[in-house]
Amino acid sequence: MKEIKGGITSPKGFKAAVTAAGIKYQGRTDMAMVTCEVPCECAGTFTSNVVKAACVQWDQKLVYSGRPMQAVVVNSGIANACTGKEGFDACEATAKAVEAALGIPADTVAVASTGVIGMQLPVERLENGVKAMAKTLEASIEASTAASKAIMTTDTVNKEIAVTFEADGKLITLGGMSKGSGMIHPNMCTMLGFLTTDLAIDKGLMQEALSEVIKDTFNMITVDGDTSTNDTLLLMADGLAQNTRITSKNSDYASFKEALFYVCRYLARRMASDGEGATKLFEAKVVNAKTKEDARILSRAIVGSNLSKAAIYGCDANFGRFLCAMGYSGAQFDQNDVELFFESSEGRLQVFDKGTPLDFDEELAVKIMKASEVTVYVDMHEGSEEATAWGCDLTYDYVKINADYRS
Amino acid sequence: MKEIKGGITSPKGFKAAVTAAGIKYQGRTDMAMVTCEVPCECAGTFTSNVVKAACVQWDQKLVYSGRPMQAVVVNSGIANACTGKEGFDACEATAKAVEAALGIPADTVAVASTGVIGMQLPVERLENGVKAMAKTLEASIEASTAASKAIMTTDTVNKEIAVTFEADGKLITLGGMSKGSGMIHPNMCTMLGFLTTDLAIDKGLMQEALSEVIKDTFNMITVDGDTSTNDTLLLMADGLAQNTRITSKNSDYASFKEALFYVCRYLARRMASDGEGATKLFEAKVVNAKTKEDARILSRAIVGSNLSKAAIYGCDANFGRFLCAMGYSGAQFDQNDVELFFESSEGRLQVFDKGTPLDFDEELAVKIMKASEVTVYVDMHEGSEEATAWGCDLTYDYVKINADYRS
Repeated sequence: MKEIKGGITSPKGFKAAVTAAGIKYQGRTDMAMVTCEVPCECAGTFTSNVVKAACVQWDQKLVYSGRPMQAVVVNSGIANACTGKEGFDACEATAKAVEAALGIPADTVAVASTGVIGMQLPVERLENGVKAMAKTLEASIEASTAASKAIMTTDTVNKEIAVTFEADGKLITLGGMSKGSGMIHPNMCTMLGFLTTDLAIDKGLMQEALSEVIKDTFNMITVDGDTSTNDTLLLMADGLAQNTRITSKNSDYASFKEALFYVCRYLARRMASDGEGATKLFEAKVVNAKTKEDARILSRAIVGSNLSKAAIYGCDANFGRFLCAMGYSGAQFDQNDVELFFESSEGRLQVFDKGTPLDFDEELAVKIMKASEVTVYVDMHEGSEEATAWGCDLTYDYVKINADYRS
Repeated sequence: MKEIKGGITSPKGFKAAVTAAGIKYQGRTDMAMVTCEVPCECAGTFTSNVVKAACVQWDQKLVYSGRPMQAVVVNSGIANACTGKEGFDACEATAKAVEAALGIPADTVAVASTGVIGMQLPVERLENGVKAMAKTLEASIEASTAASKAIMTTDTVNKEIAVTFEADGKLITLGGMSKGSGMIHPNMCTMLGFLTTDLAIDKGLMQEALSEVIKDTFNMITVDGDTSTNDTLLLMADGLAQNTRITSKNSDYASFKEALFYVCRYLARRMASDGEGATKLFEAKVVNAKTKEDARILSRAIVGSNLSKAAIYGCDANFGRFLCAMGYSGAQFDQNDVELFFESSEGRLQVFDKGTPLDFDEELAVKIMKASEVTVYVDMHEGSEEATAWGCDLTYDYVKINADYRS
């Protein structure tokens, strides 16, 4: 597997376009469209929030029906959540605009939105946006990058990636982009993410791979503990690489899953480190836990704690906060088994040894924690399972961004 | 029932003292002791955090044994959590110092600590502190107030209250104090709290009343979602009011429970509004829920969401964030049943009507949200149960306080 320069237009058959539709932002590109030459197999995962945005309801209907997918239309600025029937109608109108402009059937067009909850989308602007984008679709890297930027809200950097791998002697490409900076908390998936590939694979296997991979990637990040109403991750596969279609868990399936994991992990980490107001990536690695689920719960609790996050921001090796978060996580363990370390490019330091606080070098601790990526490494000494979670520090800017979001 | 000026020394038989023991703070009163003339029945609730502080382990052992309690020693500055055997020994040494100074048996002395996790207590200073306090015990209101101040950490105001009510024709007094400002999240109880009364009542009934009352008071507040390792709430009853001992759920029991609810609710609200960095009290009232538990879960999710809290700080009627928090709370409901209002002393405004966002008056919304106590009122239209939860806004100062706690 090899990482290449590119994104969602890198696999054969995919094109993208963007436009400034004036949805909510003025003078900023706020719509993106991804289309494929041919209908694609599609897998998806969606927010577990009971309050699902209209677009999530639309996409779930399409994906769960088993129908192929041929286009995705995304807007930033307004989330189309808590918008009742009018909101659902806006999804349908968008899909019909794609059908009118490109002949792609409306029931193969997914839609996704991100932004303010509780506002209606301006349908005419959406339709005009689709019309404009239909004329400028391109397979270039520039089009892919523009799309990854158009879907941003409070993100400070765009997130895209592409990799290649081999299956059945054919070169396969997998591309992806995502956005997400706030209202991010592990549950199903936790942001908008779009993946494309020219692999030929059965829908069921693709969905299984996706559902497994997100457990250790997108579901392991948290910015603020708030699971969005709009989380959507879609993976479209058009089969244009002409490999023998994957219909069992053979070595090609393994290669695909490895590439999928790489791409999802990359995007997830990028989202965590670009959390609203964040100055650094905060990673928690829990090893030797009793069960995989325990390891996941413990590592997520550490990166999810406001107090831990504030300590990471302050470069304060206040390790009790991390143990405290583990303690209320829901996992059962004995603090007398636990060892805790801080790690970064600057070094590694043990601060807690099986129930007993260590008298550690505070200067070294500060040096380690000043790095741009800081890891809390916890050895549970209770089993052999491990997990890693990613978050960010809690800063003044998180409050600033969110105390004044709608304006 | 009547609220009176006073606190934990108001009931007959109780005295308090404080001292500056130099535990961690220099030149600040950081220890408090409460004693009773006679052994008391004692009820308690403790943190559900798996990582329990040494003092919690000590107190649980005493309370669960059914043993009477005659004194409580509290220190602020160091939490005595994650401190292994040495920490537990410090609890025992403190209790033994009380026995040496006052003749109160060590196994009837509760201890409680709050402050930094992962540091050992200076045992000699604790012992000297107990010795000093033993000479200055007083039943005055001043002593009670001084105790409520000595247990503060990042609190900005002390929290104490006393009420009187009648049982069996006798005047009964119930007093209480608590501290808590950060690392506060509902689970069993969520801070240090000490209640005293001169009521005569069976231990079992008292524990039942306390366990029920905290469900709708202390367990309904949250500051930051972090359940402490040290949460302790103790209720001591010495029987000196000489009422006929309460041994069944009669009208005296009802009066007691009403007074207990009043006191706990008062202290809980005071703690929420004094949350670290808070500028206002943020209340969520959920009515007409399917079950009581749903109502509690929903209201706590609303006040627990970082995004909701930041919106409250910014006086931004961004109601989607509150619906989003309800959606991921774990309670099941249909957004098309929900009505949502903002309320304060400045007025009342509906913003969401059964699935549809309303076109509301933004100026009025800001006016309502600028009040020092803001309520999000949600009608679920799915049943007849209700609950209220309390929290505070998320501000720059929360981050400031917690990014630099240990120094």
